[in-house]
Amino acid sequence: MEQYLEIDPWKIVEEGFDPNRQRSSESIFSIGNGHMGQRANFEEHYSGSTLQGSYIGGIYYPDKTKVGWWKNGYPEYFAKVLNSVNWIGIEIEVNGHRLDLAECEVSDFTRTLDMKQGLLKRSFVAEMPTGDKIEVQACRFVSMERPEVGAIEYKVKALNFDGTVTFTPYVNGEVTNEDANYDEIFWDEVEQGLVPGGGLVTTKTKKLDFYVCAGMKCSLQKNDSALDIESDSECSSMKISQSYEVSVSEGDELCFHKYAIVASSLNHERKRLHSHVKEQLSDVLSVGYQTLLQEQVDRWDTIWDGSDVQIEGDDEAQQGIRFNIFQLYQTYTGEDERLNIGPKGFTGEKYGGCTYWDTEAYCLPFYLNTARDEVARNLLLYRYRHLPKAIENAEKLGFTDGAALYPMVTMNGEECHNEWEITFEEIHRNGAIAYAIYNYIQHTGDTDYLHEAGLEVLIAISRFWSQRFNFSEKRQQYVMLGVTGPNEYENNINNNWYTSYIGCWTMRYTMQCIENVRGESPDRFKEICDKVEFEDAETERWKDILDRVYLPEDENLGIILQQDNYLDKVQRSTSDLDKSERPLNQNWSWDRILRSCFIKQGDVVQGLYFFEDHFDEETIRRNFDFYEPRTVHESSLSPCIHAILASKLGYNDKAYQLYLRTARLDIDDYNQEVHQGLHITSMAGTWMSIVEGFAGKRAKEGTLHFAPTLPDQWDAYSFKILHKGSLLKVRVDTDEIEVQCERGDAVECYLYGEKYKASPDQPLTVPAKAVSA
Amino acid sequence: MEQYLEIDPWKIVEEGFDPNRQRSSESIFSIGNGHMGQRANFEEHYSGSTLQGSYIGGIYYPDKTKVGWWKNGYPEYFAKVLNSVNWIGIEIEVNGHRLDLAECEVSDFTRTLDMKQGLLKRSFVAEMPTGDKIEVQACRFVSMERPEVGAIEYKVKALNFDGTVTFTPYVNGEVTNEDANYDEIFWDEVEQGLVPGGGLVTTKTKKLDFYVCAGMKCSLQKNDSALDIESDSECSSMKISQSYEVSVSEGDELCFHKYAIVASSLNHERKRLHSHVKEQLSDVLSVGYQTLLQEQVDRWDTIWDGSDVQIEGDDEAQQGIRFNIFQLYQTYTGEDERLNIGPKGFTGEKYGGCTYWDTEAYCLPFYLNTARDEVARNLLLYRYRHLPKAIENAEKLGFTDGAALYPMVTMNGEECHNEWEITFEEIHRNGAIAYAIYNYIQHTGDTDYLHEAGLEVLIAISRFWSQRFNFSEKRQQYVMLGVTGPNEYENNINNNWYTSYIGCWTMRYTMQCIENVRGESPDRFKEICDKVEFEDAETERWKDILDRVYLPEDENLGIILQQDNYLDKVQRSTSDLDKSERPLNQNWSWDRILRSCFIKQGDVVQGLYFFEDHFDEETIRRNFDFYEPRTVHESSLSPCIHAILASKLGYNDKAYQLYLRTARLDIDDYNQEVHQGLHITSMAGTWMSIVEGFAGKRAKEGTLHFAPTLPDQWDAYSFKILHKGSLLKVRVDTDEIEVQCERGDAVECYLYGEKYKASPDQPLTVPAKAVSA
Repeated sequence: MEQYLEIDPWKIVEEGFDPNRQRSSESIFSIGNGHMGQRANFEEHYSGSTLQGSYIGGIYYPDKTKVGWWKNGYPEYFAKVLNSVNWIGIEIEVNGHRLDLAECEVSDFTRTLDMKQGLLKRSFVAEMPTGDKIEVQACRFVSMERPEVGAIEYKVKALNFDGTVTFTPYVNGEVTNEDANYDEIFWDEVEQGLVPGGGLVTTKTKKLDFYVCAGMKCSLQKNDSALDIESDSECSSMKISQSYEVSVSEGDELCFHKYAIVASSLNHERKRLHSHVKEQLSDVLSVGYQTLLQEQVDRWDTIWDGSDVQIEGDDEAQQGIRFNIFQLYQTYTGEDERLNIGPKGFTGEKYGGCTYWDTEAYCLPFYLNTARDEVARNLLLYRYRHLPKAIENAEKLGFTDGAALYPMVTMNGEECHNEWEITFEEIHRNGAIAYAIYNYIQHTGDTDYLHEAGLEVLIAISRFWSQRFNFSEKRQQYVMLGVTGPNEYENNINNNWYTSYIGCWTMRYTMQCIENVRGESPDRFKEICDKVEFEDAETERWKDILDRVYLPEDENLGIILQQDNYLDKVQRSTSDLDKSERPLNQNWSWDRILRSCFIKQGDVVQGLYFFEDHFDEETIRRNFDFYEPRTVHESSLSPCIHAILASKLGYNDKAYQLYLRTARLDIDDYNQEVHQGLHITSMAGTWMSIVEGFAGKRAKEGTLHFAPTLPDQWDAYSFKILHKGSLLKVRVDTDEIEVQCERGDAVECYLYGEKYKASPDQPLTVPAKAVSA
Repeated sequence: MEQYLEIDPWKIVEEGFDPNRQRSSESIFSIGNGHMGQRANFEEHYSGSTLQGSYIGGIYYPDKTKVGWWKNGYPEYFAKVLNSVNWIGIEIEVNGHRLDLAECEVSDFTRTLDMKQGLLKRSFVAEMPTGDKIEVQACRFVSMERPEVGAIEYKVKALNFDGTVTFTPYVNGEVTNEDANYDEIFWDEVEQGLVPGGGLVTTKTKKLDFYVCAGMKCSLQKNDSALDIESDSECSSMKISQSYEVSVSEGDELCFHKYAIVASSLNHERKRLHSHVKEQLSDVLSVGYQTLLQEQVDRWDTIWDGSDVQIEGDDEAQQGIRFNIFQLYQTYTGEDERLNIGPKGFTGEKYGGCTYWDTEAYCLPFYLNTARDEVARNLLLYRYRHLPKAIENAEKLGFTDGAALYPMVTMNGEECHNEWEITFEEIHRNGAIAYAIYNYIQHTGDTDYLHEAGLEVLIAISRFWSQRFNFSEKRQQYVMLGVTGPNEYENNINNNWYTSYIGCWTMRYTMQCIENVRGESPDRFKEICDKVEFEDAETERWKDILDRVYLPEDENLGIILQQDNYLDKVQRSTSDLDKSERPLNQNWSWDRILRSCFIKQGDVVQGLYFFEDHFDEETIRRNFDFYEPRTVHESSLSPCIHAILASKLGYNDKAYQLYLRTARLDIDDYNQEVHQGLHITSMAGTWMSIVEGFAGKRAKEGTLHFAPTLPDQWDAYSFKILHKGSLLKVRVDTDEIEVQCERGDAVECYLYGEKYKASPDQPLTVPAKAVSA
């Protein structure tokens, strides 16, 4: 790992063009608006190595590996994140020679991701093989204000020649996925057509019939004066293009604007798509680039106002956290309840499907604290709407009576992953989905959610756990066999403590919620019971399991056991590993990984994080001290959880190291895989590392608690919390904690266990507590 | 399961044509000669459902599923059994209308597999849509005498019309596999050409460059007189054909002979292939059909003379065992040491690759007893030649110092299977390969094999076991984590008794063999040590493992434990299962199967079979009584092992039931999957059920032991044993056992533990011992 990109608090900056890093930079500089997004592919032709990617939320492809080892119960397909229509393309010719950064001399190359304003910029000088030199300045964005709109400004200056420059913007629906089987094309032609100054292409997916219509309109200026020139148009099966040839003299600057509309049958009737896009194109052209740009800047101002984290005295850390927040809001804005947060967002093809337990375990806390409650509620409702499919999914595996197993990976509620050890066995996801309901209520106090939807989900999940435990005659205890815990470097293990524990917790919490809803609203309770055919007698088995469950531990070591047989493994520490062996998943055979004691991501530790109030600090410490040195953190979801507990335990240096690892995971490409896309969901973990870790934020029964520490490397840090409609700014420096209520009503909160109130008119200031490691 | 085919001691007979059973019959009536073979596809065009399959031993395709979940350490490819050139095709036209059994009225249809003579026959009357009726009699074989030769006699009689009949024989290299990804074609055109009365097609595989040249020559008779008529030839990229139009009057009979040569670059220089086939075609034409046929009958006579099993009083059982012996010898003759025994032989595409542990555990005993010793020795040498690849394979997984892990599935010594739980974990195969050496020496007394090759294999396998066990500090014992035993309904389990036990046995046996070779031939021993860098100090760890190994058992039940946690499962019996749930692998999710106590195939019981002398009969009984009722026998390799132990334990009815299940598995299509091909390797198990089961045959230190019982359902049975060059016939009836030495020197053997001698001039007769269940 080396630091390739420039350090800047508000920008990601790449100086100089390195074709070997193009795929990585395409990921890092990705832009999106929650509705659609794309990798930082070049507008102009590029013959070097590139992963072309333009993605639309909710549009996917149900693919299937045709030959392989199928297991009974596997889903019919797995969902592919689908590369869709390329609307950014603008071919450039200089005196008839095509611009291609792989084929010309490039100098003064700068690529910038302006996170404050939500813009992708690029500037460079290109010397063509003919010796003609041009200077290019490009700026692109997908509009946060208008989800279907993208805009590009592409300026070309003739540095040393007279002649012609040709712009050939296009919209091309004939695109492919790299992860396609045998170069299969996933799109069919529907229609295409030209309009003055632009054109439209409609395509549909070969399966599921998602229709996408993309259109463009363009305008051109020379030395700040509008040019109205004839264009040559071409129209083929899935592509339309127009060519504008302009005469230039040395020193002339051409400014080309391309506006795009990308709309789909998710939001429009198919037959209206074409006309809708046509109308929007005219609208957007008349609005103009400068106005669209200003809207973009304003929207991002608003987002940053509610979510920014400031780190004083450490630009590297500052850049890291802002990059993470920026990418999260580019991926998910919470406005469309049908969407969710894919692990790679709009930045790559990897990981078919969009929704993992990442959403509940990592992303939910971020949105719970930085967005209005409806956003988090939408994330919960997403799962509620999928409940019937989760029940079907469990039935396929042999469960009965309304038990639900949520899918490991999904687009529409159906499971779309097929590795048996994950699909069938990594069932702890069900626990995270239950925990999210609890977490939401702890933050918002919105117990109505239980009445509306939450209780149904909890009952269905508890039914699953109740059936998934079995009574061992031999042991005279309930056991849970054949599971995969959060640590995916163990498969098909018995009595994974985390899974068994969260299973028990779910049943206990569900029984408590049943009593609450029954008490608060007997009629609604009866309605729910009738709907899901719930009878109190069901809970007898739940209670019996809670009474007689086997949860593995080791008395000698005083630790919880990750699973049966864990101590039969050869016990080693990550410090014994040679650098050349890391990451293990790229250097060791799967077999060796499975048999080693090394842990991919927190497993026992994940449970201690979720349920820290159930354990005294010394228990947490013993387990952390035992497991963290065995943890290779090869899941991007791992370091943040450890950082939070390290902060709690006063391991400040450890917490800081782990924080850095998440914060700059992608920018610095720790795992040498950023070329595949960004780790979007784990970005929420970076935020958690600061807010829950360093600042020790917790929410208990609707009230906020803080116990801040300050990393030695920082002068101060501050962050925003949106809590029950009030916006708090919390600032921590070496001397004091300041909590300011920037908007809304006064907020009661606890600092180091003491109760205070932060009022709009009076910032709350408390001396910082020094915590030594 | 119903009995569809006719019962006949020497034939498989299908009366009446049922298109729904065509794929199944294509499997069951398959023919082969060890070198090549094919499904019983029709010669004439058939538009109904069919799996076209013509296979050549040793020719495969290294395929890869392009999209999927890859694990580190997986091989680059998996080997596909490759459908190759169709040389059987003969299109028939009657007055210009193409014969197609899917499109005309078929009556008097009989398909016969003549196992005595090695012939596939078919006869039927077809009424064309025009009303024209023909009678067809076809006979086909692949020559056991001439491995590259196939011959067809196809007779057509005009029953009710005058007009024309056209024969269009062809050779077509443009064939596909059903299990291809996206209909990929695996063959490329090389050349094709016509010769008088025939033609040739050469194709090559797109990968690995296997060249195959197939040629045909034909001749035609009308009412027993040779016809010399002009043919129209066609020649396209991978196909040649010739059309013979013949005028017929009602009652005329045409007899068409097609001779084919199929040769490959495995046995010939590529540039010589074409001319070789051309020469052979002329030869074979001059030899003529009747001579080829007689050779075939003679060769099968010889095979049956050495391997036949006769069952008196039970034609169903008789047919079953002969079918199994017939298919085994069609698949593997032991003449080409590069070949092995694919689980589906030449009868279907399923199971990429050809060599599994089935060869050592099941097929070896069959060939050891029915063929000359060189055949079994060739099977051992096959693995010896693959030793360097097995060491490479282990290195990929992180093993060192010359440890070898033989592949689960292979064509050329490389692993070509990719399910982690099998590829990496079903390592007991290594044990079976070691056991085969032991077994071979027990039968043949050929300890020279150790010097030549065996010891190197044993040392390499022992090194693997030594590294694969690890010392558990917690337990203070050696454990073996993360394996899959023979019971593949458990994956990634800890301390699978069978695997640990055979691992220990291998190390113990290797140490013994080391001492033997050292003692018998110190120079050769030193050579081996130098070659494999063996030092005596290595065995210190082996001994320590043997001293301190953990082998799971349950003291209360007095049984060996299949693996850790087995008794934590809900304990059920197969008798609790509803018929609709069987087979589990078609009706239960994989998840449910993994968590259940049900056993796919013997696991502890497999170990008790291999090592029966290590355990007293009561221990074997307790374990059999515990495990057999939990065993669903959903591997075709399972019933035979249980049948053998059931016989030993005096469970005669059980033994007979289990025997029947293997013997007629494919004929009666127990598992509803015969359409995919036959279970070739498990056919050896049928033979074992009789010879090792009912007759209680064992080989100990080069000497044969028998302890026969007679199933109630039989009057008598007899079988042949080829032992150290002598051919014994053993006959068992209700009263006595007769052992006759039909050829070679007198043989000492034990009957019920008493020593006897069977001389050529004097049959040995001993009273049968009644064993009650």
